[in-house]
Amino acid sequence: MTAGESYQEFDTELIARRKFIRQQLQEINQITDNDNRNHRFQSLLAKTGANFFVESEFKFDYGFNIHIGDHFYGNYDITMLDTCPITIGEHCYFGPNVGLYTPVHPLDAKSRNADVEMGAPITIGDSVWMGGRVTVLPGVTIGNRVVVGAGSVVTKSFPDDVVIVGNPARIIHHLDQDGNVIKN
Amino acid sequence: MTAGESYQEFDTELIARRKFIRQQLQEINQITDNDNRNHRFQSLLAKTGANFFVESEFKFDYGFNIHIGDHFYGNYDITMLDTCPITIGEHCYFGPNVGLYTPVHPLDAKSRNADVEMGAPITIGDSVWMGGRVTVLPGVTIGNRVVVGAGSVVTKSFPDDVVIVGNPARIIHHLDQDGNVIKN
Amino acid sequence: MTAGESYQEFDTELIARRKFIRQQLQEINQITDNDNRNHRFQSLLAKTGANFFVESEFKFDYGFNIHIGDHFYGNYDITMLDTCPITIGEHCYFGPNVGLYTPVHPLDAKSRNADVEMGAPITIGDSVWMGGRVTVLPGVTIGNRVVVGAGSVVTKSFPDDVVIVGNPARIIHHLDQDGNVIKN
Repeated sequence: MTAGESYQEFDTELIARRKFIRQQLQEINQITDNDNRNHRFQSLLAKTGANFFVESEFKFDYGFNIHIGDHFYGNYDITMLDTCPITIGEHCYFGPNVGLYTPVHPLDAKSRNADVEMGAPITIGDSVWMGGRVTVLPGVTIGNRVVVGAGSVVTKSFPDDVVIVGNPARIIHHLDQDGNVIKN
Repeated sequence: MTAGESYQEFDTELIARRKFIRQQLQEINQITDNDNRNHRFQSLLAKTGANFFVESEFKFDYGFNIHIGDHFYGNYDITMLDTCPITIGEHCYFGPNVGLYTPVHPLDAKSRNADVEMGAPITIGDSVWMGGRVTVLPGVTIGNRVVVGAGSVVTKSFPDDVVIVGNPARIIHHLDQDGNVIKN
Repeated sequence: MTAGESYQEFDTELIARRKFIRQQLQEINQITDNDNRNHRFQSLLAKTGANFFVESEFKFDYGFNIHIGDHFYGNYDITMLDTCPITIGEHCYFGPNVGLYTPVHPLDAKSRNADVEMGAPITIGDSVWMGGRVTVLPGVTIGNRVVVGAGSVVTKSFPDDVVIVGNPARIIHHLDQDGNVIKN
Protein backbone atom coordinates (compact mmCIF):
# COMPACT_ATOMS: atom_id res chain seq x y z
CA MET A 1 0.00 0.00 0.00
CA THR A 2 2.64 2.49 1.05
CA ALA A 3 4.67 2.01 -2.12
CA GLY A 4 1.92 3.72 -4.07
CA GLU A 5 0.65 0.67 -5.93
CA SER A 6 -3.08 0.10 -6.12
CA TYR A 7 -4.62 -2.16 -3.55
CA GLN A 8 -8.06 -3.17 -2.46
CA GLU A 9 -9.52 -2.13 0.81
CA PHE A 10 -10.46 -5.67 1.80
CA ASP A 11 -7.17 -6.43 3.58
CA THR A 12 -8.34 -7.70 6.95
CA GLU A 13 -5.32 -6.41 8.90
CA LEU A 14 -5.78 -2.89 7.55
CA ILE A 15 -9.50 -3.00 8.25
CA ALA A 16 -8.81 -4.10 11.82
CA ARG A 17 -6.26 -1.31 12.25
CA ARG A 18 -8.67 1.35 10.98
CA LYS A 19 -11.36 0.08 13.31
CA PHE A 20 -8.93 0.16 16.23
CA ILE A 21 -7.76 3.68 15.36
CA ARG A 22 -11.29 5.04 15.07
CA GLN A 23 -12.14 3.64 18.49
CA GLN A 24 -8.96 5.12 19.94
CA LEU A 25 -9.58 8.52 18.34
CA GLN A 26 -13.12 8.70 19.69
CA GLU A 27 -11.72 8.15 23.15
CA ILE A 28 -8.53 10.21 22.95
CA ASN A 29 -10.14 13.26 21.34
CA GLN A 30 -12.29 13.62 24.44
CA ILE A 31 -9.33 13.76 26.84
CA THR A 32 -8.99 17.30 28.18
CA ASP A 33 -5.63 16.82 29.87
CA ASN A 34 -3.13 17.99 27.26
CA ASP A 35 -0.24 15.75 28.30
CA ASN A 36 -2.37 12.67 28.56
CA ARG A 37 -4.11 13.30 25.23
CA ASN A 38 -0.89 13.95 23.36
CA HIS A 39 0.91 10.95 24.82
CA ARG A 40 -1.97 8.80 23.67
CA PHE A 41 -1.80 10.26 20.16
CA GLN A 42 1.97 9.73 20.08
CA SER A 43 1.56 6.06 20.97
CA LEU A 44 -0.41 5.55 17.73
CA LEU A 45 1.93 7.39 15.34
CA ALA A 46 5.02 5.95 13.65
CA LYS A 47 7.28 8.73 14.90
CA THR A 48 6.96 11.90 16.92
CA GLY A 49 9.51 13.94 18.86
CA ALA A 50 9.93 16.49 21.62
CA ASN A 51 7.21 19.10 22.15
CA PHE A 52 4.45 17.33 20.27
CA PHE A 53 1.13 19.07 20.73
CA VAL A 54 -2.13 18.58 18.79
CA GLU A 55 -5.53 19.96 19.74
CA SER A 56 -8.72 17.90 19.43
CA GLU A 57 -10.17 16.54 17.14
CA PHE A 58 -7.11 15.04 15.49
CA LYS A 59 -8.12 12.33 13.00
CA PHE A 60 -6.16 9.90 10.85
CA ASP A 61 -6.52 6.46 9.25
CA TYR A 62 -3.73 4.24 10.53
CA GLY A 63 -1.12 6.31 12.37
CA PHE A 64 1.68 3.90 11.41
CA ASN A 65 2.36 6.00 8.31
CA ILE A 66 2.68 9.35 10.13
CA HIS A 67 6.21 10.59 10.93
CA ILE A 68 6.51 13.98 12.66
CA GLY A 69 9.67 15.81 13.76
CA ASP A 70 10.32 17.68 17.03
CA HIS A 71 8.37 20.79 18.04
CA PHE A 72 5.10 20.14 16.26
CA TYR A 73 1.99 22.18 16.95
CA GLY A 74 -1.33 21.31 15.30
CA ASN A 75 -4.45 23.36 16.01
CA TYR A 76 -8.08 22.16 16.09
CA ASP A 77 -9.45 19.51 13.75
CA ILE A 78 -6.40 18.35 11.80
CA THR A 79 -7.07 15.39 9.48
CA MET A 80 -4.29 13.19 8.03
CA LEU A 81 -5.37 10.37 5.73
CA ASP A 82 -2.29 8.17 5.90
CA THR A 83 -2.84 5.30 3.51
CA CYS A 84 0.64 6.33 2.30
CA PRO A 85 3.45 7.85 4.39
CA ILE A 86 3.10 11.38 5.70
CA THR A 87 6.42 12.87 6.78
CA ILE A 88 6.59 16.23 8.57
CA GLY A 89 9.85 17.96 9.54
CA GLU A 90 10.83 19.83 12.70
CA HIS A 91 9.29 23.04 14.01
CA CYS A 92 6.09 22.86 11.94
CA TYR A 93 2.93 24.81 12.87
CA PHE A 94 -0.43 23.78 11.44
CA GLY A 95 -3.50 26.04 11.76
CA PRO A 96 -6.96 24.58 12.39
CA ASN A 97 -8.69 22.32 9.87
CA VAL A 98 -5.58 21.40 7.91
CA GLY A 99 -6.12 18.26 5.82
CA LEU A 100 -3.34 16.06 4.39
CA TYR A 101 -4.85 13.45 2.08
CA THR A 102 -2.71 10.64 0.61
CA PRO A 103 -5.40 8.32 -0.84
CA VAL A 104 -6.15 8.35 -4.56
CA HIS A 105 -9.05 6.63 -6.28
CA PRO A 106 -9.01 5.66 -9.97
CA LEU A 107 -10.65 7.97 -12.52
CA ASP A 108 -12.42 4.90 -13.88
CA ALA A 109 -15.75 4.57 -12.09
CA LYS A 110 -15.83 0.80 -12.65
CA SER A 111 -12.55 0.43 -10.72
CA ARG A 112 -13.77 2.71 -7.95
CA ASN A 113 -16.93 0.66 -7.70
CA ALA A 114 -14.67 -2.40 -7.17
CA ASP A 115 -12.93 -0.57 -4.29
CA VAL A 116 -9.55 -0.19 -5.99
CA GLU A 117 -7.58 2.50 -4.16
CA MET A 118 -4.09 3.92 -4.65
CA GLY A 119 -2.18 6.63 -2.88
CA ALA A 120 0.94 8.80 -2.87
CA PRO A 121 3.06 10.06 0.03
CA ILE A 122 3.09 13.62 1.38
CA THR A 123 6.32 15.19 2.63
CA ILE A 124 6.53 18.48 4.54
CA GLY A 125 9.90 20.10 5.30
CA ASP A 126 11.20 21.81 8.44
CA SER A 127 9.76 25.05 9.85
CA VAL A 128 6.69 25.00 7.63
CA TRP A 129 3.76 27.15 8.72
CA MET A 130 0.41 26.08 7.30
CA GLY A 131 -2.43 28.53 7.82
CA GLY A 132 -5.90 27.34 8.73
CA ARG A 133 -7.95 25.19 6.36
CA VAL A 134 -5.09 24.18 4.07
CA THR A 135 -5.62 21.07 1.94
CA VAL A 136 -2.61 19.06 0.71
CA LEU A 137 -3.08 16.52 -2.08
CA PRO A 138 -1.46 13.10 -2.58
CA GLY A 139 2.13 13.12 -3.79
CA VAL A 140 2.92 16.67 -2.72
CA THR A 141 6.31 17.66 -1.27
CA ILE A 142 6.60 21.04 0.48
CA GLY A 143 10.09 22.44 1.11
CA ASN A 144 11.66 23.91 4.23
CA ARG A 145 10.49 27.23 5.69
CA VAL A 146 7.47 27.40 3.40
CA VAL A 147 4.44 29.46 4.47
CA VAL A 148 1.09 28.23 3.14
CA GLY A 149 -1.74 30.79 3.23
CA ALA A 150 -5.02 29.92 4.94
CA GLY A 151 -7.54 28.18 2.69
CA SER A 152 -4.96 27.08 0.12
CA VAL A 153 -5.28 23.84 -1.84
CA VAL A 154 -1.79 22.48 -2.52
CA THR A 155 -1.96 20.37 -5.67
CA LYS A 156 1.74 20.14 -6.56
CA SER A 157 5.18 20.30 -4.92
CA PHE A 158 7.01 23.49 -3.90
CA PRO A 159 10.67 24.26 -3.09
CA ASP A 160 12.18 25.81 0.06
CA ASP A 161 11.63 29.41 1.17
CA VAL A 162 8.43 30.40 -0.60
CA VAL A 163 5.03 31.74 0.40
CA ILE A 164 2.20 29.98 -1.42
CA VAL A 165 -1.52 30.80 -1.50
CA GLY A 166 -4.72 30.04 -3.41
CA ASN A 167 -6.67 27.22 -5.03
CA PRO A 168 -4.59 25.84 -6.61
CA ALA A 169 -1.72 27.17 -4.49
CA ARG A 170 0.93 29.20 -6.34
CA ILE A 171 4.04 31.06 -5.24
CA ILE A 172 3.47 34.72 -4.31
CA HIS A 173 6.79 35.39 -2.56
CA HIS A 174 10.32 34.06 -2.39
CA LEU A 175 11.99 34.51 1.01
CA ASP A 176 15.62 35.13 1.92
CA GLN A 177 17.33 33.43 4.86
CA ASP A 178 15.84 35.94 7.32
CA GLY A 179 12.30 35.52 6.02
CA ASN A 180 12.35 38.80 4.10
CA VAL A 181 10.42 38.91 0.85
CA ILE A 182 12.90 39.04 -2.05
CA LYS A 183 12.01 41.97 -4.28
CA ASN A 184 12.50 41.44 -7.98
CA MET B 1 -39.82 24.08 2.43
CA THR B 2 -38.59 21.33 0.15
CA ALA B 3 -40.23 22.82 -2.93
CA GLY B 4 -37.78 25.68 -2.78
CA GLU B 5 -40.22 28.39 -1.70
CA SER B 6 -39.20 30.72 1.08
CA TYR B 7 -40.30 29.85 4.59
CA GLN B 8 -39.68 31.06 8.05
CA GLU B 9 -37.76 29.06 10.56
CA PHE B 10 -40.45 29.34 13.23
CA ASP B 11 -42.30 26.17 12.20
CA THR B 12 -42.58 24.27 15.47
CA GLU B 13 -42.46 20.82 13.89
CA LEU B 14 -39.24 21.60 12.03
CA ILE B 15 -37.71 23.14 15.13
CA ALA B 16 -38.58 20.03 17.12
CA ARG B 17 -37.08 17.80 14.43
CA ARG B 18 -33.82 19.77 14.35
CA LYS B 19 -33.59 19.58 18.12
CA PHE B 20 -34.19 15.83 18.03
CA ILE B 21 -31.61 15.33 15.28
CA ARG B 22 -28.94 17.34 17.09
CA GLN B 23 -29.46 15.26 20.21
CA GLN B 24 -29.29 12.06 18.18
CA LEU B 25 -26.14 13.17 16.34
CA GLN B 26 -24.35 14.06 19.57
CA GLU B 27 -25.04 10.54 20.77
CA ILE B 28 -24.53 8.58 17.55
CA ASN B 29 -21.29 10.30 16.55
CA GLN B 30 -19.71 8.94 19.72
CA ILE B 31 -20.53 5.32 18.92
CA THR B 32 -17.33 3.47 18.03
CA ASP B 33 -18.98 0.28 16.79
CA ASN B 34 -19.26 0.83 13.03
CA ASP B 35 -22.36 -1.28 12.46
CA ASN B 36 -24.21 0.18 15.38
CA ARG B 37 -23.30 3.78 14.46
CA ASN B 38 -24.28 3.37 10.82
CA HIS B 39 -27.58 1.64 11.58
CA ARG B 40 -28.46 4.52 13.84
CA PHE B 41 -27.60 7.05 11.12
CA GLN B 42 -29.66 5.08 8.60
CA SER B 43 -32.70 5.17 10.87
CA LEU B 44 -32.71 8.98 10.64
CA LEU B 45 -32.30 9.33 6.85
CA ALA B 46 -35.07 9.19 4.25
CA LYS B 47 -33.35 6.46 2.24
CA THR B 48 -30.12 4.51 2.36
CA GLY B 49 -29.11 1.19 0.83
CA ALA B 50 -26.68 -1.71 1.09
CA ASN B 51 -23.15 -1.02 2.29
CA PHE B 52 -23.81 2.33 3.87
CA PHE B 53 -20.79 3.57 5.82
CA VAL B 54 -20.11 7.03 7.23
CA GLU B 55 -17.35 7.96 9.65
CA SER B 56 -17.91 10.33 12.60
CA GLU B 57 -18.78 13.21 12.85
CA PHE B 58 -21.61 13.07 10.32
CA LYS B 59 -23.91 16.08 10.71
CA PHE B 60 -27.17 17.10 9.05
CA ASP B 61 -30.31 19.17 9.77
CA TYR B 62 -33.33 16.90 9.41
CA GLY B 63 -32.35 13.64 7.76
CA PHE B 64 -35.80 13.20 6.19
CA ASN B 65 -34.53 15.00 3.08
CA ILE B 66 -31.44 12.81 2.54
CA HIS B 67 -31.69 9.98 -0.01
CA ILE B 68 -28.55 7.90 -0.60
CA GLY B 69 -28.08 4.93 -2.96
CA ASP B 70 -26.29 1.62 -2.30
CA HIS B 71 -22.56 1.39 -1.57
CA PHE B 72 -22.00 4.78 -0.01
CA TYR B 73 -18.78 5.66 1.79
CA GLY B 74 -18.38 9.00 3.56
CA ASN B 75 -15.16 9.86 5.37
CA TYR B 76 -14.72 12.01 8.50
CA ASP B 77 -16.80 15.11 9.20
CA ILE B 78 -19.35 15.15 6.37
CA THR B 79 -22.00 17.88 6.71
CA MET B 80 -25.30 17.84 4.78
CA LEU B 81 -27.66 20.76 5.37
CA ASP B 82 -30.91 19.22 4.14
CA THR B 83 -33.54 21.94 4.33
CA CYS B 84 -34.19 20.82 0.73
CA PRO B 85 -33.78 17.29 -0.69
CA ILE B 86 -30.28 15.86 -1.11
CA THR B 87 -30.19 12.88 -3.46
CA ILE B 88 -27.03 10.81 -3.92
CA GLY B 89 -26.71 7.91 -6.38
CA GLU B 90 -25.06 4.51 -6.00
CA HIS B 91 -21.37 3.80 -5.44
CA CYS B 92 -20.45 7.30 -4.27
CA TYR B 93 -17.27 8.02 -2.29
CA PHE B 94 -16.95 11.22 -0.27
CA GLY B 95 -13.62 12.35 1.18
CA PRO B 96 -13.42 14.01 4.60
CA ASN B 97 -15.02 17.39 5.30
CA VAL B 98 -17.38 17.36 2.31
CA GLY B 99 -20.22 19.86 2.77
CA LEU B 100 -23.53 19.82 0.86
CA TYR B 101 -25.51 22.94 1.67
CA THR B 102 -29.11 23.37 0.42
CA PRO B 103 -30.24 26.44 2.44
CA VAL B 104 -30.33 29.87 0.84
CA HIS B 105 -30.87 33.16 2.62
CA PRO B 106 -32.17 36.30 0.87
CA LEU B 107 -29.70 38.93 -0.35
CA ASP B 108 -31.89 41.51 1.37
CA ALA B 109 -30.60 41.99 4.91
CA LYS B 110 -34.04 43.08 6.16
CA SER B 111 -35.51 39.73 5.06
CA ARG B 112 -32.63 37.79 6.62
CA ASN B 113 -33.14 39.69 9.83
CA ALA B 114 -36.76 38.48 9.76
CA ASP B 115 -35.52 34.86 9.43
CA VAL B 116 -36.78 34.29 5.90
CA GLU B 117 -34.96 31.28 4.45
CA MET B 118 -35.20 29.50 1.10
CA GLY B 119 -33.32 26.56 -0.35
CA ALA B 120 -32.68 24.45 -3.43
CA PRO B 121 -32.10 20.70 -3.79
CA ILE B 122 -28.75 19.02 -4.48
CA THR B 123 -28.54 15.94 -6.70
CA ILE B 124 -25.42 13.77 -7.08
CA GLY B 125 -25.28 10.98 -9.70
CA ASP B 126 -23.92 7.43 -9.51
CA SER B 127 -20.24 6.59 -8.97
CA VAL B 128 -19.26 10.11 -8.04
CA TRP B 129 -15.97 10.56 -6.18
CA MET B 130 -15.70 13.75 -4.18
CA GLY B 131 -12.26 14.55 -2.84
CA GLY B 132 -11.80 15.95 0.64
CA ARG B 133 -13.15 19.36 1.60
CA VAL B 134 -15.51 19.77 -1.34
CA THR B 135 -18.33 22.30 -0.94
CA VAL B 136 -21.55 21.91 -2.99
CA LEU B 137 -23.96 24.85 -3.21
CA PRO B 138 -27.78 24.88 -3.29
CA GLY B 139 -29.40 23.84 -6.54
CA VAL B 140 -26.39 21.96 -7.94
CA THR B 141 -26.74 18.71 -9.92
CA ILE B 142 -23.62 16.61 -10.49
CA GLY B 143 -23.72 13.91 -13.19
CA ASN B 144 -22.69 10.25 -13.10
CA ARG B 145 -19.03 9.20 -12.76
CA VAL B 146 -17.90 12.74 -11.98
CA VAL B 147 -14.65 13.25 -10.04
CA VAL B 148 -14.53 16.41 -7.91
CA GLY B 149 -11.04 17.54 -6.87
CA ALA B 150 -10.26 18.13 -3.20
CA GLY B 151 -11.04 21.65 -1.99
CA SER B 152 -13.40 22.45 -4.87
CA VAL B 153 -16.41 24.74 -4.46
CA VAL B 154 -19.16 23.53 -6.79
CA THR B 155 -21.36 26.53 -7.63
CA LYS B 156 -23.22 25.21 -10.71
CA SER B 157 -24.32 21.90 -12.26
CA PHE B 158 -22.07 19.55 -14.27
CA PRO B 159 -22.81 16.72 -16.71
CA ASP B 160 -21.68 13.06 -16.63
CA ASP B 161 -18.06 11.90 -17.04
CA VAL B 162 -16.05 14.97 -16.18
CA VAL B 163 -13.31 15.87 -13.70
CA ILE B 164 -13.93 19.22 -12.03
CA VAL B 165 -11.65 21.24 -9.74
CA GLY B 166 -11.24 24.70 -8.24
CA ASN B 167 -13.14 27.57 -6.65
CA PRO B 168 -15.44 27.90 -8.48
CA ALA B 169 -15.19 24.36 -9.86
CA ARG B 170 -14.67 24.05 -13.62
CA ILE B 171 -14.16 21.11 -15.98
CA ILE B 172 -10.51 20.10 -16.48
CA HIS B 173 -11.09 16.71 -18.13
CA HIS B 174 -13.73 14.80 -20.01
CA LEU B 175 -13.63 11.03 -19.44
CA ASP B 176 -14.49 8.14 -21.78
CA GLN B 177 -16.40 5.08 -20.62
CA ASP B 178 -13.25 3.51 -19.15
CA GLY B 179 -12.30 6.62 -17.20
CA ASN B 180 -9.57 7.63 -19.65
CA VAL B 181 -9.04 11.32 -20.17
CA ILE B 182 -10.27 12.27 -23.66
CA LYS B 183 -7.51 14.12 -25.50
CA ASN B 184 -8.59 16.95 -27.74
CA MET C 1 -1.32 40.74 22.61
CA THR C 2 -4.57 42.32 21.48
CA ALA C 3 -2.90 45.49 20.28
CA GLY C 4 -1.32 43.54 17.47
CA GLU C 5 2.25 43.61 18.77
CA SER C 6 4.24 40.41 18.71
CA TYR C 7 4.32 38.33 21.85
CA GLN C 8 5.56 34.96 22.92
CA GLU C 9 3.25 32.14 23.77
CA PHE C 10 4.92 31.45 27.11
CA ASP C 11 2.69 33.81 29.11
CA THR C 12 1.45 31.61 31.94
CA GLU C 13 -1.90 33.35 32.34
CA LEU C 14 -2.72 32.93 28.66
CA ILE C 15 -1.62 29.30 28.73
CA ALA C 16 -3.83 28.66 31.74
CA ARG C 17 -6.80 30.35 30.02
CA ARG C 18 -6.37 28.27 26.85
CA LYS C 19 -6.21 25.11 28.92
CA PHE C 20 -9.34 26.11 30.81
CA ILE C 21 -11.18 26.97 27.59
CA ARG C 22 -10.26 23.68 25.91
CA GLN C 23 -11.57 21.77 28.90
CA GLN C 24 -14.76 23.82 28.91
CA LEU C 25 -15.27 23.37 25.16
CA GLN C 26 -14.86 19.60 25.38
CA GLU C 27 -17.61 19.56 27.97
CA ILE C 28 -19.95 22.21 26.54
CA ASN C 29 -19.85 20.93 22.97
CA GLN C 30 -21.38 17.67 24.20
CA ILE C 31 -24.39 19.36 25.80
CA THR C 32 -27.49 18.58 23.73
CA ASP C 33 -29.83 21.02 25.48
CA ASN C 34 -29.66 24.13 23.31
CA ASP C 35 -30.34 26.68 26.06
CA ASN C 36 -27.91 25.13 28.46
CA ARG C 37 -25.15 24.80 25.84
CA ASN C 38 -25.52 28.35 24.62
CA HIS C 39 -25.62 29.86 28.10
CA ARG C 40 -22.40 28.05 28.86
CA PHE C 41 -20.79 29.39 25.67
CA GLN C 42 -22.00 32.92 26.49
CA SER C 43 -20.40 32.77 29.94
CA LEU C 44 -16.98 32.36 28.26
CA LEU C 45 -17.28 35.14 25.67
CA ALA C 46 -16.54 38.84 26.21
CA LYS C 47 -19.94 39.93 24.95
CA THR C 48 -23.04 38.33 23.48
CA GLY C 49 -26.62 39.53 23.22
CA ALA C 50 -30.21 38.41 22.79
CA ASN C 51 -30.93 35.33 20.69
CA PHE C 52 -27.43 33.88 20.71
CA PHE C 53 -27.37 30.42 19.18
CA VAL C 54 -24.36 28.34 18.10
CA GLU C 55 -24.39 24.68 17.13
CA SER C 56 -21.68 22.24 18.27
CA GLU C 57 -18.69 22.06 17.89
CA PHE C 58 -17.95 25.73 18.52
CA LYS C 59 -14.23 26.24 19.17
CA PHE C 60 -12.13 29.25 20.13
CA ASP C 61 -8.90 30.11 21.96
CA TYR C 62 -9.71 32.46 24.83
CA GLY C 63 -13.28 33.75 24.49
CA PHE C 64 -12.40 37.04 26.22
CA ASN C 65 -11.66 38.58 22.82
CA ILE C 66 -14.97 37.62 21.19
CA HIS C 67 -17.72 40.27 21.05
CA ILE C 68 -20.97 39.32 19.30
CA GLY C 69 -24.11 41.43 18.81
CA ASP C 70 -27.76 40.41 19.24
CA HIS C 71 -29.43 37.76 17.09
CA PHE C 72 -26.42 35.64 16.20
CA TYR C 73 -26.78 32.23 14.59
CA GLY C 74 -23.73 30.04 13.98
CA ASN C 75 -24.09 26.63 12.36
CA TYR C 76 -21.98 23.51 12.98
CA ASP C 77 -18.23 23.62 13.61
CA ILE C 78 -17.46 27.35 13.80
CA THR C 79 -13.85 28.13 14.80
CA MET C 80 -12.74 31.56 16.06
CA LEU C 81 -9.06 31.96 16.91
CA ASP C 82 -9.23 35.02 19.14
CA THR C 83 -5.68 35.93 20.05
CA CYS C 84 -6.82 39.38 18.91
CA PRO C 85 -10.34 40.85 19.20
CA ILE C 86 -13.13 39.45 17.04
CA THR C 87 -16.11 41.78 16.84
CA ILE C 88 -19.36 40.69 15.15
CA GLY C 89 -22.39 42.97 14.69
CA GLU C 90 -26.09 42.27 15.08
CA HIS C 91 -28.20 39.86 13.05
CA CYS C 92 -25.29 37.84 11.65
CA TYR C 93 -25.74 34.32 10.23
CA PHE C 94 -22.74 32.01 9.87
CA GLY C 95 -22.96 28.78 7.87
CA PRO C 96 -21.15 25.62 9.02
CA ASN C 97 -17.36 25.43 9.20
CA VAL C 98 -16.74 29.18 9.18
CA GLY C 99 -13.25 30.01 10.47
CA LEU C 100 -12.16 33.44 11.77
CA TYR C 101 -8.41 33.42 12.38
CA THR C 102 -6.66 36.37 14.07
CA PRO C 103 -3.19 34.90 14.81
CA VAL C 104 -0.24 35.71 12.57
CA HIS C 105 3.15 34.05 12.65
CA PRO C 106 6.33 35.72 11.33
CA LEU C 107 7.52 34.91 7.79
CA ASP C 108 10.97 34.34 9.30
CA ALA C 109 11.26 30.66 10.21
CA LYS C 110 13.81 31.41 12.93
CA SER C 111 11.30 33.65 14.72
CA ARG C 112 8.54 31.09 14.33
CA ASN C 113 10.82 28.44 15.77
CA ALA C 114 11.22 30.75 18.80
CA ASP C 115 7.41 30.88 19.17
CA VAL C 116 7.02 34.55 18.28
CA GLU C 117 3.37 35.17 17.37
CA MET C 118 1.47 38.30 16.34
CA GLY C 119 -2.13 38.87 15.36
CA ALA C 120 -4.64 41.35 13.98
CA PRO C 121 -8.31 41.89 14.86
CA ILE C 122 -11.29 40.84 12.75
CA THR C 123 -14.42 43.00 12.57
CA ILE C 124 -17.72 41.91 11.00
CA GLY C 125 -20.60 44.39 10.52
CA ASP C 126 -24.34 44.01 11.08
CA SER C 127 -26.56 41.65 9.11
CA VAL C 128 -23.68 39.78 7.51
CA TRP C 129 -24.44 36.37 6.05
CA MET C 130 -21.42 34.08 5.73
CA GLY C 131 -22.00 30.93 3.71
CA GLY C 132 -20.53 27.62 4.81
CA ARG C 133 -16.77 27.07 4.96
CA VAL C 134 -15.77 30.72 4.78
CA THR C 135 -12.27 31.59 6.01
CA VAL C 136 -11.52 35.11 7.29
CA LEU C 137 -7.89 36.20 7.70
CA PRO C 138 -6.28 38.40 10.38
CA GLY C 139 -6.93 42.12 10.10
CA VAL C 140 -10.01 41.85 7.90
CA THR C 141 -13.02 44.17 8.33
CA ILE C 142 -16.28 43.21 6.60
CA GLY C 143 -18.99 45.89 6.25
CA ASN C 144 -22.70 45.80 7.02
CA ARG C 145 -25.13 43.64 5.02
CA VAL C 146 -22.31 41.82 3.22
CA VAL C 147 -22.98 38.34 1.82
CA VAL C 148 -19.94 36.03 1.67
CA GLY C 149 -20.27 33.05 -0.67
CA ALA C 150 -19.64 29.54 0.63
CA GLY C 151 -16.01 28.45 0.46
CA SER C 152 -14.63 31.99 0.19
CA VAL C 153 -11.26 32.97 1.65
CA VAL C 154 -11.48 36.61 2.75
CA THR C 155 -7.96 38.06 2.65
CA LYS C 156 -8.73 41.80 2.75
CA SER C 157 -11.43 44.20 3.96
CA PHE C 158 -14.70 44.95 2.17
CA PRO C 159 -17.24 47.81 2.44
CA ASP C 160 -21.00 47.66 3.15
CA ASP C 161 -23.59 46.15 0.80
CA VAL C 162 -21.55 43.83 -1.39
CA VAL C 163 -21.60 40.15 -2.29
CA ILE C 164 -18.13 38.61 -2.23
CA VAL C 165 -16.99 35.14 -3.37
CA GLY C 166 -13.88 33.13 -4.21
CA ASN C 167 -10.32 32.47 -3.07
CA PRO C 168 -9.28 35.21 -2.62
CA ALA C 169 -12.73 36.73 -2.16
CA ARG C 170 -13.64 39.56 -4.56
CA ILE C 171 -16.78 41.63 -5.09
CA ILE C 172 -19.26 40.16 -7.59
CA HIS C 173 -22.27 42.36 -6.76
CA HIS C 174 -23.11 45.68 -5.17
CA LEU C 175 -26.48 45.75 -3.40
CA ASP C 176 -28.99 48.57 -2.95
CA GLN C 177 -30.83 49.18 0.32
CA ASP C 178 -33.39 46.47 -0.49
CA GLY C 179 -30.76 43.86 -1.30
CA ASN C 180 -31.26 44.15 -5.06
CA VAL C 181 -28.20 43.71 -7.24
CA ILE C 182 -27.23 47.09 -8.71
CA LYS C 183 -26.92 46.74 -12.48
CA ASN C 184 -24.20 48.73 -14.12
